Amino acid sequence: MAKMAPRTLSGFMELLPAPQQQMERIMKALRETYSLYGFTPLDTPAIEASEVLLAKAGGETEKQIYRFQKGDSDLSLRFDLTVPLAKYVALHYNELSFPFRRYQIGKVYRGERAQRGRFREFYQADIDIIGDGKLAILNEAEIPAIIYQTFSTLGLKRFQIRVNNRKILNGFYAMLGLTEKSGDIMRTVDKLEKIGADKVKTILTEDFAVSAADADEILKFIAIKGSNEEVLTALEGYLGRSEMFDEGLSELKAVTQHLSAFGVPAENFAVDLTIARGLDYYTGTVYETTLLDHPEIGSVCSGGRYDNLAEYYTDKQLPGVGISIGLTRLFYVLGEQKMLNPDLPTAPADVLILPMTDDLAPAISLATELRKAGIRAQLHCEEKKFKAKMSYADKLAIPYVIFLGEDEINAGVVACKDMKSGEQTKLPMSDTINRIQTGLAELEKGAVILE
Amino acid sequence: MAKMAPRTLSGFMELLPAPQQQMERIMKALRETYSLYGFTPLDTPAIEASEVLLAKAGGETEKQIYRFQKGDSDLSLRFDLTVPLAKYVALHYNELSFPFRRYQIGKVYRGERAQRGRFREFYQADIDIIGDGKLAILNEAEIPAIIYQTFSTLGLKRFQIRVNNRKILNGFYAMLGLTEKSGDIMRTVDKLEKIGADKVKTILTEDFAVSAADADEILKFIAIKGSNEEVLTALEGYLGRSEMFDEGLSELKAVTQHLSAFGVPAENFAVDLTIARGLDYYTGTVYETTLLDHPEIGSVCSGGRYDNLAEYYTDKQLPGVGISIGLTRLFYVLGEQKMLNPDLPTAPADVLILPMTDDLAPAISLATELRKAGIRAQLHCEEKKFKAKMSYADKLAIPYVIFLGEDEINAGVVACKDMKSGEQTKLPMSDTINRIQTGLAELEKGAVILE
Repeated sequence: MAKMAPRTLSGFMELLPAPQQQMERIMKALRETYSLYGFTPLDTPAIEASEVLLAKAGGETEKQIYRFQKGDSDLSLRFDLTVPLAKYVALHYNELSFPFRRYQIGKVYRGERAQRGRFREFYQADIDIIGDGKLAILNEAEIPAIIYQTFSTLGLKRFQIRVNNRKILNGFYAMLGLTEKSGDIMRTVDKLEKIGADKVKTILTEDFAVSAADADEILKFIAIKGSNEEVLTALEGYLGRSEMFDEGLSELKAVTQHLSAFGVPAENFAVDLTIARGLDYYTGTVYETTLLDHPEIGSVCSGGRYDNLAEYYTDKQLPGVGISIGLTRLFYVLGEQKMLNPDLPTAPADVLILPMTDDLAPAISLATELRKAGIRAQLHCEEKKFKAKMSYADKLAIPYVIFLGEDEINAGVVACKDMKSGEQTKLPMSDTINRIQTGLAELEKGAVILE
Repeated sequence: MAKMAPRTLSGFMELLPAPQQQMERIMKALRETYSLYGFTPLDTPAIEASEVLLAKAGGETEKQIYRFQKGDSDLSLRFDLTVPLAKYVALHYNELSFPFRRYQIGKVYRGERAQRGRFREFYQADIDIIGDGKLAILNEAEIPAIIYQTFSTLGLKRFQIRVNNRKILNGFYAMLGLTEKSGDIMRTVDKLEKIGADKVKTILTEDFAVSAADADEILKFIAIKGSNEEVLTALEGYLGRSEMFDEGLSELKAVTQHLSAFGVPAENFAVDLTIARGLDYYTGTVYETTLLDHPEIGSVCSGGRYDNLAEYYTDKQLPGVGISIGLTRLFYVLGEQKMLNPDLPTAPADVLILPMTDDLAPAISLATELRKAGIRAQLHCEEKKFKAKMSYADKLAIPYVIFLGEDEINAGVVACKDMKSGEQTKLPMSDTINRIQTGLAELEKGAVILE
């Protein structure tokens, strides 16, 4: 029979078993951390009606969408988890209680040009808090606090959550009489790190007809740097000239203060006036998160406050704040940078049982006992040589191998080999279980991410 | 602004938060149980190249597939998890160790005609064991033992795993000289429960030119019923007439015996000669699982032994055995039958904290303490009346509400209300945490499924 060469599409992550175990560990940590903060899991469809999904989209996003016909239906794969959330909240408004806190970890699809480290199918891990009409400022501090907690739980240390407030930016541009151009200006300023101050000035003056004096003012403004305290103090110098600016500064102060109360260390967050986020959608606090040793990666976790989640679907005013981790890309980068802890178990099982008798019943009972004790056990009953079975355990990094022969069965013990130390014991079942559990707890001690 | 009416596509399950929590609980139980048996999680892409995915497909399946162009690529959404597994194993053959045991819980897509309880996007939860060249019979007993354990863990009691062996059927048809027609006969006999013996006979004689005498023999054969012991004994009467039959019976006996060793109670599995599974793909043991009180639902978990997982992609002989739970449909049925335990917590949080002071720092510290203790806590700092906040906790069924005012802060206590009993305590933090933890453990006690 002619064979079809098996292949996986480019831009689609498909992990081998060991790295997949690492990915699962990260996802579990995300689910658990998000849950601790009172977020409820959602799971919306990956396919939506195109007219619903694209009610708002346009430009670059629309081009990347996987859109197709099935029968009479015009369908699209979701390209983020925010639009499906907006649809969900608008659709189920009467059945939800607000503030509505949800997390969703799911695959999204963007047909980007394939390149190393860019994915067409990738996980986003989102949290959002949606209010009905209003939403307290505290939430804008809690969201980055959760990200701090999430990354810390994973073992990440050298990261920084950079915080700004769009009202400060909009207010500042209003002072200069540049409100109309503020969108263009912010998108330009957003590129500061990539292209440098000179090019930003050129674009501002040439493309958007900002005066040279105003461009200098803008560059001076976004150059305000220092400790959070210093930046906030410098911003106070602009007070009283724009209501919006004053409001933004007051919010930014509140967020900064609450972040401390949430226990986020000063080195892990920074007020940074260059953060604007490209999307017009954000109206208040905005976030980006960078790995301090890998600025070239850009933001691994971004989001912010928006005033109107679902304006394309409903008249209800639904303000919210949310943030998204680009999980697949983050995982890829961690792997590339050798930051995934290689000492954590990635084996499919904790114990491999090698029955040495024809009657498999004692080995099956043993496996059942181990599983009852929460130990992942695999029976290896294939017709293979002993050496091949040991090499199987070795290759898969299964930490313990148990041999069960007539002698052990008659003596009421099991022979158990610690594959790492090579130490072999012959102990009664309960002692063996204790030994394995202690060993496994030791193996599980480290964090997923090493720095 | 004109609004787009939000909607979710028909045939796509989108759960409200409370049922979603139940679904998450079930998925967690599946992941944990599968892991205990030494299965490693995989996560293959939802999109594959059409030529790869459809190397084998045809007929009904192909019509249901979501297939589309993106740029120059002909793409399809996966319609099951077996074909992607075959591709994965063939593609990564050199990097895997055999036997390869994997589980995958993922969404698959079939554009079926929309009808109540049928889904176009649905979860399958699969386990498979793949051998390299050979695979021991024990695996064919372990797979249904895992399903027994999985369903039992979920709380299901009145279910039956029905087991047969295709070699027995093929061997029997060989005895009658009907080997060529065995596929057609088995597909017909498969409908016995639905259409009855008379109609089966009519189809056999009229459509497939089976003699009336042979049709009677067939009906007599598949009518063999009774305890597992009785069925096996009756089958012994056919021994010595077909090598294939004899092999199948020997396998079926081994599977039955091992199932007992795995602790599967006799009432939860039955040797049933009417089980054939439609697919030609299966070559040995086959399984179907029915809910005893809901036979109308059909099989909720099916699978079997196959000799050649990936013959469309590789010359390697890769025999395997696997089973699949149709999770979305099962969940839907459990909901319809009111079998989901309504007493298990479905709230987004265990504790709602109502700060009664302007300074939120003490409330934030309290939330942090609770979360450190593994208690899911939500701060409610919105500008709402006390009554509205209590009603929020009530609607979401959050089990505890904590009030934190000046008095409590000064006295070093927290006021905590058990929303179910109405009992309110004022205790130091550590005692409150103990009380909540004890209460939550009590709430978590039941199984997900009630019968």
